[in-house]
Amino acid sequence: MRSSHQVRVGGSVNSNFGGLEAGGSKFVCVIGSGPENVQAERTIPTTTPNETIGQAEAFFREHQPISALGIASFGPIDLDPNSQTFGYITSTPKKNWANTEFAGRIKRVLNVPVAFDTDTNAAALAEATWGNARGLHTFLYLTVGTGIGGGGMMAGQPLHGLSHPEMGHLRLPHDSKRDPYKGACPFHGDCLEGLAAGPALIGRWGQPGENLPPNHPAWPLEAQYLALGIANIIYTLSPQRIILGGGVMKQTTLFPMIRREVQQILRGYLRLTAIIDEIDDYIVPPRLGDRTGVLGAIALAKKAIGEC
Amino acid sequence: MRSSHQVRVGGSVNSNFGGLEAGGSKFVCVIGSGPENVQAERTIPTTTPNETIGQAEAFFREHQPISALGIASFGPIDLDPNSQTFGYITSTPKKNWANTEFAGRIKRVLNVPVAFDTDTNAAALAEATWGNARGLHTFLYLTVGTGIGGGGMMAGQPLHGLSHPEMGHLRLPHDSKRDPYKGACPFHGDCLEGLAAGPALIGRWGQPGENLPPNHPAWPLEAQYLALGIANIIYTLSPQRIILGGGVMKQTTLFPMIRREVQQILRGYLRLTAIIDEIDDYIVPPRLGDRTGVLGAIALAKKAIGEC
Repeated sequence: MRSSHQVRVGGSVNSNFGGLEAGGSKFVCVIGSGPENVQAERTIPTTTPNETIGQAEAFFREHQPISALGIASFGPIDLDPNSQTFGYITSTPKKNWANTEFAGRIKRVLNVPVAFDTDTNAAALAEATWGNARGLHTFLYLTVGTGIGGGGMMAGQPLHGLSHPEMGHLRLPHDSKRDPYKGACPFHGDCLEGLAAGPALIGRWGQPGENLPPNHPAWPLEAQYLALGIANIIYTLSPQRIILGGGVMKQTTLFPMIRREVQQILRGYLRLTAIIDEIDDYIVPPRLGDRTGVLGAIALAKKAIGEC
Repeated sequence: MRSSHQVRVGGSVNSNFGGLEAGGSKFVCVIGSGPENVQAERTIPTTTPNETIGQAEAFFREHQPISALGIASFGPIDLDPNSQTFGYITSTPKKNWANTEFAGRIKRVLNVPVAFDTDTNAAALAEATWGNARGLHTFLYLTVGTGIGGGGMMAGQPLHGLSHPEMGHLRLPHDSKRDPYKGACPFHGDCLEGLAAGPALIGRWGQPGENLPPNHPAWPLEAQYLALGIANIIYTLSPQRIILGGGVMKQTTLFPMIRREVQQILRGYLRLTAIIDEIDDYIVPPRLGDRTGVLGAIALAKKAIGEC
């Protein structure tokens, strides 16, 4: 059966895979097998589940045969294979999308293996396969954009437990005298995401991050909150490297600020060479840039059939 | 060679193992193979490395043959097999103990396999082997005593990364109006350990936790800080269960308070049955009680030779 989904080229097996990055504002669909081989791509605005998932299904049907499909989804999602709602988007505040069947529906339509994980765990897998996490067993991928999400690996396995991480909601020290902004998270107010994701920049400064110049006071404050969150994750996971992606991190002036703040917050307690002397190589951007998410979906698909 | 360390009983192999729980105030040494089989035990006060480690070595020499030794150590410790200081206690503020060779020294004296991990990862392994974490792949063991430390497993592997976790030093919201106490951590002041370990109880209330009655205002505040730390760990690791041990947790009135606070802090964001409906079974004490640490050392020893 599997050979029907593969194209033989010069005696070797060249499979094609589907990758779907399902985000809160858009779905990105690609066909390919890695960063050097993306053959087709389509971007679909995220409207209702039926419309958006239906258009994604149509794209992948047009590009059959594919050997497997990977879905890198916004969350929270149900990753428990024993659950009635395995493969669903669960308690998202996003209108129309709570309790939406997702992976199972696509699998029925396409009839290929479908792998399903969070967008950040998928991005982490992409960086482990082709990017800045190659050779590492334990690392963090944190995305800072419309929301904040964390994924990664420990001992070479994706971060899964009772469910998946929700690092955006870490609770942090918040000095209301320095920063009276109450926070933008509908659940917790001033959690990490509430203080440091894109909507917090708009709420606090009246304009989006991309309009704020590198010397704006927004950035030292942003770096401080991100560094507090990162320090908490270091204390919990002890990652070998931290990759920071997402729209807010396009303000690259944040990287040196965050590195300095992380060192300040740890205050010499962790006397590790990586953090003290080699922090430029410890806190880094993703190598795969904007394509980290959708390439993560491709990596999930390849892994699902043992090719990655 | 291995048979020389084993005692054959009725045709089956009954190995003896050494377990050493190395704490900041005492070393506990045992000989045995599990909770139902502890044959000898000695407690040694922690003074200088030469004196204390020397006495532990003497105990295990007296009880040779043993098949392997496990060490569950206070930290920070060096767990990187490629490091020059692998098996050392590293940057501890404890007088005389910084940069102390430990596992290698004992291995040279006893000439058996020696396994080395943090006291909390070892305790977690004990609970996974004989206690409240049996059958779980991802869980947290948090000890709250003179200090606060976290260990556990993810995907069935101990929590190791760049180094080991240091969950005691998580940074949390600290409302100085409600609680003006500055915190007891020499590195960070008001980190989790600085606000909630034993010395913070003494510093804030003028007496140790064991003297404070269950209705003392110390306990709701203590539960709040511990719950904030636990919530941050849930957001990062997504453990299937949380085991809380250590001296401070002997005030068992803390358990229901912490469970309620964790639910409050998460505020419905994680709609997981384990946390909403089954929290009495989600946040629990260790099954092995005071012996969790030293039995963890035995479990490390057994694992080192593939018997656990």
